[in-house]
Amino acid sequence: MRLVQFYRHGDGGGARVGVEQAEGQGVIDLKAFDPSMPCNMKEFLEMGEKGMECAQRALSSGQCVVARSELKLLPPVTAPEKVVCVGMNYRDHCLEQNAPIPAEPIIFSKFSSAITGPYDDILLPEESQEVDWEVELAFVIGRKGKHIKEEDALSHVAGFTVANDVSARDWQMRRNGKQWLLGKTFDTFCPLGPALVTTGSVKDVHKLGVRCLVNGAVVQDSNTDQMIFRTEKLVAWVSRFVTLVPGDVFLTGTPPGVGVFRNPPVFLKKGDVVECQIDEIGAIRNTVV
Amino acid sequence: MRLVQFYRHGDGGGARVGVEQAEGQGVIDLKAFDPSMPCNMKEFLEMGEKGMECAQRALSSGQCVVARSELKLLPPVTAPEKVVCVGMNYRDHCLEQNAPIPAEPIIFSKFSSAITGPYDDILLPEESQEVDWEVELAFVIGRKGKHIKEEDALSHVAGFTVANDVSARDWQMRRNGKQWLLGKTFDTFCPLGPALVTTGSVKDVHKLGVRCLVNGAVVQDSNTDQMIFRTEKLVAWVSRFVTLVPGDVFLTGTPPGVGVFRNPPVFLKKGDVVECQIDEIGAIRNTVV
Repeated sequence: MRLVQFYRHGDGGGARVGVEQAEGQGVIDLKAFDPSMPCNMKEFLEMGEKGMECAQRALSSGQCVVARSELKLLPPVTAPEKVVCVGMNYRDHCLEQNAPIPAEPIIFSKFSSAITGPYDDILLPEESQEVDWEVELAFVIGRKGKHIKEEDALSHVAGFTVANDVSARDWQMRRNGKQWLLGKTFDTFCPLGPALVTTGSVKDVHKLGVRCLVNGAVVQDSNTDQMIFRTEKLVAWVSRFVTLVPGDVFLTGTPPGVGVFRNPPVFLKKGDVVECQIDEIGAIRNTVV
Repeated sequence: MRLVQFYRHGDGGGARVGVEQAEGQGVIDLKAFDPSMPCNMKEFLEMGEKGMECAQRALSSGQCVVARSELKLLPPVTAPEKVVCVGMNYRDHCLEQNAPIPAEPIIFSKFSSAITGPYDDILLPEESQEVDWEVELAFVIGRKGKHIKEEDALSHVAGFTVANDVSARDWQMRRNGKQWLLGKTFDTFCPLGPALVTTGSVKDVHKLGVRCLVNGAVVQDSNTDQMIFRTEKLVAWVSRFVTLVPGDVFLTGTPPGVGVFRNPPVFLKKGDVVECQIDEIGAIRNTVV
């Protein structure tokens, strides 16, 4: 299933949770199908299997379909307790910058206020001259847990989506005492979506083509088989430190081809259009303004 | 005013927002006084002046008082969108580690899942052998803003409270690619409270004694006049990057006397009791388990 959050144009009714009939097709409004269903993804995920079963019934019913032209997609999750990010997690991205392959995951974070929708604008802050792209596979926690074992990890993952880990390199690499947070967390620096593709609907999430295009030109082109620490390992690792809860978002690191390591370096400017694509998961497309 | 969140023993009714009659005295239950008032501090702060005026009326009324023995204090804010932390922000703490005085604030973060109550236990994780204390003045945002000017900053601050920025030095300083997040964000690594003392109720927040006691022995003893970047500057600085919203918590850095810079270093062990005190604001007391 492809779960989304959306607004319906002109109904003034706030966010809804929905299921895409197919990628890019009509969206079934879960609350219209069953008034007991919640209106945001976090609460939907907290329902666990019961929510998923309802979404499955709604999808099968073919009822309560909102046409694509009548809706605006929101990020598939809003206001998660955590946005967990992983640095240096692609073998080919480490090679690109002559960095050693990490022995342990490198974990940093964004504030959830950075999350924006799959087709929303990226605000270029005047505070940075070096804003860069990073296409990433993201996953979302569906079940609470601490000290989760790798073999149980996937049962805690609700599904996968596409992220752009937008990064102000000046702030990430040279300022703020080299703590990455500020350079990573400007408002709108975490476009996310378009859908949360449930774990069971992806054949092999660690064997998917990953691409980033800037103004139509391919700048990143790799495969999730290059990930050093995979979904299961990341869930197990981070849950040694913190209790994971439904809605928590993980960004799993970026492949090579980012702007800062080009010669000469290339950064985003107003008017650029950045498209992040992951096979079977979807594509997000954001204009820099 | 001294605003708190609390549970009432045995009523099964969940969290409430209250006002202390005086430090450590009875608490006026705002929802009992006015059923239209919200049950959590974030929503209370979102009400702005209207909420504060209601709390003031409740305090003056002397009605709806819950005795101290009948309640358990919660952290004054739960589930904020952001926990913003400042590193190296006391002159004397920089001297202690032979570090230069930073020219700009150094900003990092904890996940909000680290927040725990003013008298709750600190869970010693088996993943760290070097868990340390850090008493800190904390403040909480009361009004939304971006690019806030220093001269307007205090109008965005709802009030002040006491924090312990508990830190696993091994994870902070030597692992995780030297990104501080993991060492700072274990569950229970952010005791907070006991009350949110409203901005107008503190004469000069940058001239307050700050102390940490471990098992009754004073280990940190400084004054907020040693802060390099003060409240106004921190609000202005961070709001260049992110939109601040009601409930956002700032931890403003720690004075000297932390365990890791002692000779030999000292770390927390099970059974230790850590008390963090700030004059006029209050004291929190947490047992390491």
